[in-house]
Amino acid sequence: MFKFIRIREVGLRDGLQLSRTRISYETKIKWIKRQCEAGFREMEVTSFVPPSLLPQFSDAQKVVDEANKIEDLIPSVLVPNLKGGLNALKSHSKKVLFVISASEQHNLSNVNCDIKQSLLMFNDLIKERKNSDLDKKVKISGAIATSFGCSIQGHVKEKDVLDIADKLIDIGADEINIADTVGYANPNQVSNLFKKLIKLSDKTPFGAHFHDTRGMGLTNVKSALDEGVTLFDASLGGLGGCPFAPGASGNIATEDCAYMIEAMGYDTGIDLNKLISLRKSLSKWMTEDTLLGNLSNSGLAKNFKLNH
Amino acid sequence: MFKFIRIREVGLRDGLQLSRTRISYETKIKWIKRQCEAGFREMEVTSFVPPSLLPQFSDAQKVVDEANKIEDLIPSVLVPNLKGGLNALKSHSKKVLFVISASEQHNLSNVNCDIKQSLLMFNDLIKERKNSDLDKKVKISGAIATSFGCSIQGHVKEKDVLDIADKLIDIGADEINIADTVGYANPNQVSNLFKKLIKLSDKTPFGAHFHDTRGMGLTNVKSALDEGVTLFDASLGGLGGCPFAPGASGNIATEDCAYMIEAMGYDTGIDLNKLISLRKSLSKWMTEDTLLGNLSNSGLAKNFKLNH
Repeated sequence: MFKFIRIREVGLRDGLQLSRTRISYETKIKWIKRQCEAGFREMEVTSFVPPSLLPQFSDAQKVVDEANKIEDLIPSVLVPNLKGGLNALKSHSKKVLFVISASEQHNLSNVNCDIKQSLLMFNDLIKERKNSDLDKKVKISGAIATSFGCSIQGHVKEKDVLDIADKLIDIGADEINIADTVGYANPNQVSNLFKKLIKLSDKTPFGAHFHDTRGMGLTNVKSALDEGVTLFDASLGGLGGCPFAPGASGNIATEDCAYMIEAMGYDTGIDLNKLISLRKSLSKWMTEDTLLGNLSNSGLAKNFKLNH
Repeated sequence: MFKFIRIREVGLRDGLQLSRTRISYETKIKWIKRQCEAGFREMEVTSFVPPSLLPQFSDAQKVVDEANKIEDLIPSVLVPNLKGGLNALKSHSKKVLFVISASEQHNLSNVNCDIKQSLLMFNDLIKERKNSDLDKKVKISGAIATSFGCSIQGHVKEKDVLDIADKLIDIGADEINIADTVGYANPNQVSNLFKKLIKLSDKTPFGAHFHDTRGMGLTNVKSALDEGVTLFDASLGGLGGCPFAPGASGNIATEDCAYMIEAMGYDTGIDLNKLISLRKSLSKWMTEDTLLGNLSNSGLAKNFKLNH
């Protein structure tokens, strides 16, 4: 028996948020279905944000409706504030990630309010879920952006991340997602932070969301794995790099992440051949973007065996 | 005080061996000098192989002569057999890496003899060094290729690597270089092997040479670092990928490797800004090749400080 590690695909949200290519609703659904067939049980499928700001998510409700029909799939959505959160509740999303930055300056620039206000909104969202009797139907995750550093303010204190995580758990978060939004984390920093985070609660699971901006994405996954993290975000083909710097990396590539985790002796439940085949289709769909990741070029090692 | 970790640049050998572009002797020397100015103290500058097979190294003697003039630099050379080794001794190379594969089939295909014969040649090379009174002047390293797997035979047994390392140390190797030639290693495998290797000798240093073929190159560096390895090979701009699969990765990128090691709190002695500037020049020199690595696109993190 191999320990199970869940990879949550975020390409449809974090990937498409920064990509040049606009793909249709139909292509999104094809992508979601094929990735489920490759063994994925959780995918961030869209974001509830104003369509005037991010028109690529204007089909959010339709995408959630269709994704909700797929058995065994938890389609999650990202929201930047209370309004988005309430829309997500109304949309019957099964899981909502409410984003809040550990860097005050990043929070201001990303969601246009200070951290205190974001926490109040998170509190209201949790209350609203209770009032609307959705407690058992919708999971709400607190996603802490810039947990390892910020391109605006630079250093982010461990204490600030721990304080926010602690408050989110107190308020009622079902899960905490720790994000290295700008690719500043190094593997020792990851070990140190997760060692402390895990002590905050023995009930709340912690997920990790790494970017490969400076090449350390998978190394950080390994450090978090070693600390006991069992949920990782990744984006197929590393989709989500900066569109203004071709080749610049954003999210870690799902296929490389899954391969490493399987090679290390864990079970991801993922069929890597199906995933690589989907990745080939994705590179045809994303005509204006360069996909990254190494496994799709190199292929599996000879005699490589999956742990399931 | 930060622990010192040495990165050995191998772009001029492992990188140029597979590249499409042929650069001139003058450009090679410029490269070597500028990388020394960026703080490197060891570089694999060429290979003593038949020019009919690898014409890009036909200037081997000239390159060694010029590199030897640089103070504080250890220019090393790679040799595939006794003949190459003897040429390297004659050339006054300061360090010779004798390559031998842990996979019998890879050794046959790479150096055209079996492992036993390679070991005999290594023995003769060590003897010749002694006879020619070069013992204190030339370091000889045993480089074990395909230590983590082989694209021909697949799995490579840990025991086979340990046996070869043990024999090389017995014969008189000054150093053992453990190479993941085809990018099959995973970080747990790396930890397991180095834990055992290090027990073989408390005098012989072990170096590590990782490829990023399946995205795990830097993660493997981290694992080896954690086991106490202090010498790592890397190639500027990840030079050395497969020329027939553009974008396919070979060696880990020196700049990404150095950045990670510094970020983790070690001292590499490397000036990253000078290194990135050299990497820009390299991308102009290597007109027919695609350079890889993330740091040159993303730049250093805000307020990033080197440990020296």
